[in-house]
Amino acid sequence: MAQRILILGGGFAGLFAAREVKKRLGAKAEVELISEENYFVFQPLLPEVAAGSITAPHAVTPLRALLKDVFVRKARVHSIDLDRQIVTVFQGVQRRPTEVPYDHLVVAMGQVVDLSRVPGLADHALTMKHLEDARQLRNHVIEKLEHAEITGLPEVKKEALTFTVVGAGFSGVETVGEMKELIDRSLKFYPNVSPEEVRVVVVEFADRVLSELPESLGKYARKRLEDRGIEIMLGKGVASATGTRLILSDGTEIPTRTIVATIGNAPSPVVRGMGLEQDAGKIAVERTLQAKGRDNVWSLGDCALIPMKDGAKERDDFAPPTAQFAVREAKCLAANIAASVEGAPLKPFAYKSQGALASLGARRGVAEVWGIKISGLPAWLLWRAYYVGFLPGFSTKVRVLLNWMMDAISARSVVQLKGAEPPAAHYVHYRAGDRIYEAGNRADGVYAIVSGAVELRHQGNDGRETVLILGQGDHFGDGILVGEDRRRSTVRALEDTKVLVLERDAYLQMVDAFPVLKDYFNAHLRTTFGVEPMPGKRAS
Amino acid sequence: MAQRILILGGGFAGLFAAREVKKRLGAKAEVELISEENYFVFQPLLPEVAAGSITAPHAVTPLRALLKDVFVRKARVHSIDLDRQIVTVFQGVQRRPTEVPYDHLVVAMGQVVDLSRVPGLADHALTMKHLEDARQLRNHVIEKLEHAEITGLPEVKKEALTFTVVGAGFSGVETVGEMKELIDRSLKFYPNVSPEEVRVVVVEFADRVLSELPESLGKYARKRLEDRGIEIMLGKGVASATGTRLILSDGTEIPTRTIVATIGNAPSPVVRGMGLEQDAGKIAVERTLQAKGRDNVWSLGDCALIPMKDGAKERDDFAPPTAQFAVREAKCLAANIAASVEGAPLKPFAYKSQGALASLGARRGVAEVWGIKISGLPAWLLWRAYYVGFLPGFSTKVRVLLNWMMDAISARSVVQLKGAEPPAAHYVHYRAGDRIYEAGNRADGVYAIVSGAVELRHQGNDGRETVLILGQGDHFGDGILVGEDRRRSTVRALEDTKVLVLERDAYLQMVDAFPVLKDYFNAHLRTTFGVEPMPGKRAS
Repeated sequence: MAQRILILGGGFAGLFAAREVKKRLGAKAEVELISEENYFVFQPLLPEVAAGSITAPHAVTPLRALLKDVFVRKARVHSIDLDRQIVTVFQGVQRRPTEVPYDHLVVAMGQVVDLSRVPGLADHALTMKHLEDARQLRNHVIEKLEHAEITGLPEVKKEALTFTVVGAGFSGVETVGEMKELIDRSLKFYPNVSPEEVRVVVVEFADRVLSELPESLGKYARKRLEDRGIEIMLGKGVASATGTRLILSDGTEIPTRTIVATIGNAPSPVVRGMGLEQDAGKIAVERTLQAKGRDNVWSLGDCALIPMKDGAKERDDFAPPTAQFAVREAKCLAANIAASVEGAPLKPFAYKSQGALASLGARRGVAEVWGIKISGLPAWLLWRAYYVGFLPGFSTKVRVLLNWMMDAISARSVVQLKGAEPPAAHYVHYRAGDRIYEAGNRADGVYAIVSGAVELRHQGNDGRETVLILGQGDHFGDGILVGEDRRRSTVRALEDTKVLVLERDAYLQMVDAFPVLKDYFNAHLRTTFGVEPMPGKRAS
Repeated sequence: MAQRILILGGGFAGLFAAREVKKRLGAKAEVELISEENYFVFQPLLPEVAAGSITAPHAVTPLRALLKDVFVRKARVHSIDLDRQIVTVFQGVQRRPTEVPYDHLVVAMGQVVDLSRVPGLADHALTMKHLEDARQLRNHVIEKLEHAEITGLPEVKKEALTFTVVGAGFSGVETVGEMKELIDRSLKFYPNVSPEEVRVVVVEFADRVLSELPESLGKYARKRLEDRGIEIMLGKGVASATGTRLILSDGTEIPTRTIVATIGNAPSPVVRGMGLEQDAGKIAVERTLQAKGRDNVWSLGDCALIPMKDGAKERDDFAPPTAQFAVREAKCLAANIAASVEGAPLKPFAYKSQGALASLGARRGVAEVWGIKISGLPAWLLWRAYYVGFLPGFSTKVRVLLNWMMDAISARSVVQLKGAEPPAAHYVHYRAGDRIYEAGNRADGVYAIVSGAVELRHQGNDGRETVLILGQGDHFGDGILVGEDRRRSTVRALEDTKVLVLERDAYLQMVDAFPVLKDYFNAHLRTTFGVEPMPGKRAS
């Protein structure tokens, strides 16, 4: 009977694993790939999507178009039962679990972004991991330009025109280079914004940029970015973030409304909970790519720690988390699964990197190929040629080329598509002294204090001012319930404060639906402000 | 001093009004346009965006690129003070109001979609008004195909493969035609879905389709759509909608997870609150396009009721809400504002329609131009040629043409981009007898009953079953608070029921942030199910 080979993940590792296994085993294997997205995203192109030189749908390819004889299941992996050889998933909007059996399991789920170690960063930074992140970043940058163009408040303009990127590895450098190009090419549409008002900063903990490449190329990249007006801060960590500030480890405060975090790769909670042996936050595998102690569970790509020699210990002893290696690992994996099925001996994974490339935006790049260092326009052209060649799917190649062609001959579009709205309930962080809102502002929601303390000044109808000091567990902004659409109070953070904001509509709907909330807030408004609640009008 | 001409709205009416006024008055006028989006969307292309033949960013053009000497303000209009000649707006994410003064105000805000008259429709239907709607519809259709491909439940497959459109005017017919084409061309990627399983239905209250066109063309369109396997239900209204059903006025129930509503045009709340005279839900204007009783307030496009003769009464006596008319109205408006500034006499608006066109998808269309009726491929080609000619902005024209070219020579992409998630708090409607969830399901949130009644069956740890009947103001699903990630109860609607669903994470965050909720739910769980709450773990 055909072996069921189940592959989890649709990135480079998963996609190529599915292809190679099918190629090797043909009808001897029933190959299934489970992915949360139904497309393959070519990560190196994300900064170009963020910069608008390629539109989001053109940068990706449907997995179904790339995998002809493989069953593709768009679903979220919930858990794995290694004893029963079952993976439990949730499909589409379904809440009913589905169980998928396997003979051989291949884990290629990559990594996730975890910013929780820096206070405020997870709630205020953009990331660059998914296609949606890139789309979001582009819209965010244009929104800041739109806002800077029309605001009458100098401090808001300054914050809107300061763009920061955390991390100066491949992803950080390519993102900042492309972002700067987007801004530079868009400014002609924003007559009230002058180029000197724009500030673009990269913050890196290490003492150099692009530590994946030789030092001389890092130096070239740094000089090139600085020549284009990008500030590079080396040897600095990130201490905390708010909606208007990035605070560095040395106490430096950067007033900014744009923080792009390219740091914080971590194993996904699902991978962590698989019951497989872990090492340094990755699945520990043998040189054969088998999970330690398992014959029929395999792992490759960014979620696996793959030793390149026996007794591997140093960072260089393991396969680096790059697309180039993932593709080679997939070949080795397929050969080993085939050998395993046929009872033949397995082979250890071995590969030597052919080089590395980075684009710096504005038609410049750096590359090291077969030990030869290249920089400038040739490296940038090589980058584009290499990646188009690598891009799976013919029509995706053509679409990307057409996008580049149009981008070369026409203006960058400043269309600001709708981005994801902040969730109806979300956290916001403030520094001591920050104004949270002031009288006259649009009443956007109700705020509950998770940590910290605030001062609320409220002017009553009789003109008398009430001052309240509120702390953890207290809330403010509930006047919405009595029909306020503008604030009548001014609230400031007395210390570093974290609040949960519940948006206006969600708040009104919840008070309407949960009697406990209606009773509580009505009593609260009556006793605190002497306001009589209106008869509850049912939201529809 | 230059007159401040302030234009509200960036659709056909607003865009062309701004252009024409600037052209007429030059330096004599300071023209400002306020729009919620920073781009001009060419509405007739939305069905093609929904069908994926044009990608969303390529179907629109930045207003700034189309309006060179006009100040463009991306902002949301809050209110208008006709006495002080001030418009109050909110810009970007700002909560501080901004006041914008004017000498002449032009209201070109179009209409909004209001589905509140049909129970459940607003909460369960997709619409086709904005670019985001079109993008959303495309992703939704592909999501249903993905789900149908992998589900093992026949009733879910049937619901997923039934697609309904409400309304068979221009928008409904073009949407259903394009949607069918997207499905037909995508099926090759979904081997488990056979063409006979797909059901596409249009429901129309009138007794014919395309009532904007002569009857013979309507008949042609109907036959053409039916030949392509689209069911057309005429003379039927929509009674209610749930997440899995569309219920018609005659009691027919269509099991479906896709409802596209192309009905329900209504004035926006802002327009209604302007203090301008209204008629039939629109701004009542003179034949000069001045708002009734106002010298310096003008209105045009879909939000204005524009009489085409004195003593206009019948529907045909007023200008129809089409792009063709909006563009002509803009010319008349500019001339009249110029005359008004110079103290010259104003002229009434007059224009005769040159014809109408509709695309039916799959390379067929219908058209009536200068009284000549055209159908089939020629009409479809005429449609494309006309609209590309109409499309403002040269590079947008080129991008649309390139999209069409790629679409003609390559497969339709089934990439499912991330759509907008349902808001953390949202309403869901159920019919009597519907299962809301059952034991073993993923615990996705807490539910509060807004109207109706449900039956909850809960199996205790001792194996004994508890049955609860819950009604308005009650809630269920709160076991999440004690760590449940799978349901332990089964809940069914006993009558037609509307619930507010608060998503899992938002619920946990709120209970954590509001002590009143923590106390309440802990007590509730203890008394109702005898469950002891876990010590509150702070969500981060």
